[in-house]
Amino acid sequence: MSALISQLKDLLGPHGYLEGADAEAKAQSGWSHLGTPPIVLRPASTEEVSKVLTLCHEAGQPIVAWGGLTGLVESANVGHGELALSLERMHAIEEVDEIAGTATVQAGAILQTVQEDIEKHHLILPLDLGARGSATIGGNIATNAGGNRVIRYGMMRDMVLGLEVVLADGTVLSSLGKMIKDNAGYDLKQLFIGSEGTLGVVTRAVLRLRRKPDSQDTAFIAVDEFSKLPKLLDHMDRKLAGTLSAFECLWNDFYRLLTTEPATHTPPLAQDQPYYVLIEAMGAQQEQDTSRFEAALEEAFEKELIVDAVLAKNQSERDKMWAIRDDVGQVAQNWPIFTFDVSLPVKDMEAYVSETKARLTETYPDHTAMIFGHLGDGNLHVIVGVGDDSVQARRGVEACVYEPLRSRGGSVSAEHGVGLEKRPYLLVTRTPEEIATMRAIKKALDPKGILNPGKIFEAQPLKSAAE
Amino acid sequence: MSALISQLKDLLGPHGYLEGADAEAKAQSGWSHLGTPPIVLRPASTEEVSKVLTLCHEAGQPIVAWGGLTGLVESANVGHGELALSLERMHAIEEVDEIAGTATVQAGAILQTVQEDIEKHHLILPLDLGARGSATIGGNIATNAGGNRVIRYGMMRDMVLGLEVVLADGTVLSSLGKMIKDNAGYDLKQLFIGSEGTLGVVTRAVLRLRRKPDSQDTAFIAVDEFSKLPKLLDHMDRKLAGTLSAFECLWNDFYRLLTTEPATHTPPLAQDQPYYVLIEAMGAQQEQDTSRFEAALEEAFEKELIVDAVLAKNQSERDKMWAIRDDVGQVAQNWPIFTFDVSLPVKDMEAYVSETKARLTETYPDHTAMIFGHLGDGNLHVIVGVGDDSVQARRGVEACVYEPLRSRGGSVSAEHGVGLEKRPYLLVTRTPEEIATMRAIKKALDPKGILNPGKIFEAQPLKSAAE
Repeated sequence: MSALISQLKDLLGPHGYLEGADAEAKAQSGWSHLGTPPIVLRPASTEEVSKVLTLCHEAGQPIVAWGGLTGLVESANVGHGELALSLERMHAIEEVDEIAGTATVQAGAILQTVQEDIEKHHLILPLDLGARGSATIGGNIATNAGGNRVIRYGMMRDMVLGLEVVLADGTVLSSLGKMIKDNAGYDLKQLFIGSEGTLGVVTRAVLRLRRKPDSQDTAFIAVDEFSKLPKLLDHMDRKLAGTLSAFECLWNDFYRLLTTEPATHTPPLAQDQPYYVLIEAMGAQQEQDTSRFEAALEEAFEKELIVDAVLAKNQSERDKMWAIRDDVGQVAQNWPIFTFDVSLPVKDMEAYVSETKARLTETYPDHTAMIFGHLGDGNLHVIVGVGDDSVQARRGVEACVYEPLRSRGGSVSAEHGVGLEKRPYLLVTRTPEEIATMRAIKKALDPKGILNPGKIFEAQPLKSAAE
Repeated sequence: MSALISQLKDLLGPHGYLEGADAEAKAQSGWSHLGTPPIVLRPASTEEVSKVLTLCHEAGQPIVAWGGLTGLVESANVGHGELALSLERMHAIEEVDEIAGTATVQAGAILQTVQEDIEKHHLILPLDLGARGSATIGGNIATNAGGNRVIRYGMMRDMVLGLEVVLADGTVLSSLGKMIKDNAGYDLKQLFIGSEGTLGVVTRAVLRLRRKPDSQDTAFIAVDEFSKLPKLLDHMDRKLAGTLSAFECLWNDFYRLLTTEPATHTPPLAQDQPYYVLIEAMGAQQEQDTSRFEAALEEAFEKELIVDAVLAKNQSERDKMWAIRDDVGQVAQNWPIFTFDVSLPVKDMEAYVSETKARLTETYPDHTAMIFGHLGDGNLHVIVGVGDDSVQARRGVEACVYEPLRSRGGSVSAEHGVGLEKRPYLLVTRTPEEIATMRAIKKALDPKGILNPGKIFEAQPLKSAAE
């Protein structure tokens, strides 16, 4: 490997890599340690990425692309003998086209930086998530990031119009079109979105922007029965016609955790209801939209869909409401914890949560289970603490959370991806035929298996695989 | 082939196929003759589709899947020695889940039938297009259909949550999840959407539905300068916050054609402006929404973005406005004609149209060019008549329409697909590397090349291809 590393160093120059303690430090992300790569390569252009991959491909050298390292499923982990490829030097926002409503950005650009730059043009990139300050656009694309506004604007996949990707053998696939519609052959970019860097390395993208809304209405709501949640969503979505942008649900335990000391937030509503919802709409005229929003909530009261509600009267109150929802870090009070991100049909959600809790109670009577999620997307986050973070405990808790998904057609990953962490459970959601097809695609695009090997599915097919 | 055909007939039974004159009649679609398949297979279940493909795969027998045969790019044409596979007997609407907002349907279901069934649930499938009465859901998926509401709801791709597909070798890939979010491995369904039946045969789908809007506002508008069109779109989209559902532009020649005898429509506005726009918004409360819509138009007048406007006061007036836009068949007055469907960045559109017209005028001084399109999507339809439908004339006109796309990063197909018709021009929009990657995917999923061979790209790689 050392000859290859010398070649790569020569290629990229002194700013083009990190070694030793610098590489070590880089591999220490906020949440976890990603391994000990012998070198972290830092190419400054698509051409350099292409040359790096050409050399690695020739040598059969495995390599893992890195964005902001904010992933939650061990998808950026670097195994023994693998190199890391950081896109951090490719962070330019190359163009914002106000007429087309697009931004052309390099993969290493930080989400928040891009968001802020775009807002100056009275446009928005609707993707938003807690890790906005470190997550990169390339990582958002590689993981098909979700977040709080999926209900209105979709996931990252829905915001990518054009994509430039470097394939395993160094081939540059450049398709940086700005059009919403382009049916000229296979839509190849879809393959790279959400495939966690296993099929190619994203270097640039054309993002679809939206007009910046001029009004915003936010409310915290208490609901007394699960069955009313989808009805409330249906009601609000109809009444707010096209402007509903968030419908975030918090189960009682989680709401109490976030609004009780040591957490610093005052509860906006009494803590005695089983469900809380943070609802937001983004529209055009503040006054008209607020009265529409209030009327919709009024009607929800009359229909007995909601028990209580408080509306944000200004930006500061709105910020406080979102600060509650975003203070997910409070779950660390129950450390050690296991974090899950599942999706399933909304009508099955109540039974799913009951079954999961019953399974947990049976094995871990003293467990904590914090549940919240993007109900409109069918997405629940479940955070479980059982006072033990051994592999055995993890497997036990995973069984409780994942098994009840099987019969309900649910997914073990709504938005976080699979990485290494969820790999053992991929068959809960995918059939052997689907996994065999994924392998066939992987083999077609990365025949030597050098790109992020072993993520999503094992690098070598299992003997029992359907392939 | 006759032994295989006997096997297939035995497999599907007497209702399971058409031969001779019946097959011949079936191959005569409204627009064109699709070939003379020796047999049209009509399986009644996914299992039968799987068995058909298994037999064809073993025999290396090429086969072309058929939906409603409303395509415009020769993508359902059946070449010599190829069989046809009609999904027409698989037309059930299996389930509408009101809580999840999904419909599970078989591929052969007619779009309009599905639309009407879903509306009974106070939901909509937002896809809408002129061929709704014969186009099928499977065909809509295989071609990633667009239509009039893409600006708000996206293309067919955005409405597919789950998909069941039969691969070339008979493998059934079944992934009929109902979730908006599912990042558990590669999103395989994206491969089959828009790949024109070359990678698999769609048998069932879970479609994403939306709430049925309770209000509708529609206006016909005249605009005096191209540069005002994107400004008007921006203005209306902001003011109508999330409810703008159509922004259809008609160039003067086309508007005059549609509102002058022998066409039966009365012009809603004088015929003296260069551009006309049909704008529609779909919202929640008719009265409020109408005043918002009127106020937005009022403001557009004040900003001098529009010259004249007429609002539909009731459903009958609305229907009349749409009847104008939908009466595309009037272009047959200029028969023979060539039909194009291009997309490009909006800011380049005026220059593109000028250049295309100049090129046409140079070679065909007496040509007609009717232009209309979905401006918000960057999509133009261009219909050219030069009094000659020879291959030579076609190639000449194609050069005039496609060449100016090259330097502007445009696409030769916004929504119609490639089929055979646009195959010679794929390199205008796609790089050799992209086409080589498409071939690699095709080879991985259909190694014998039996599914709709030769569509999108040549069945055998050209010697000059980058592969």
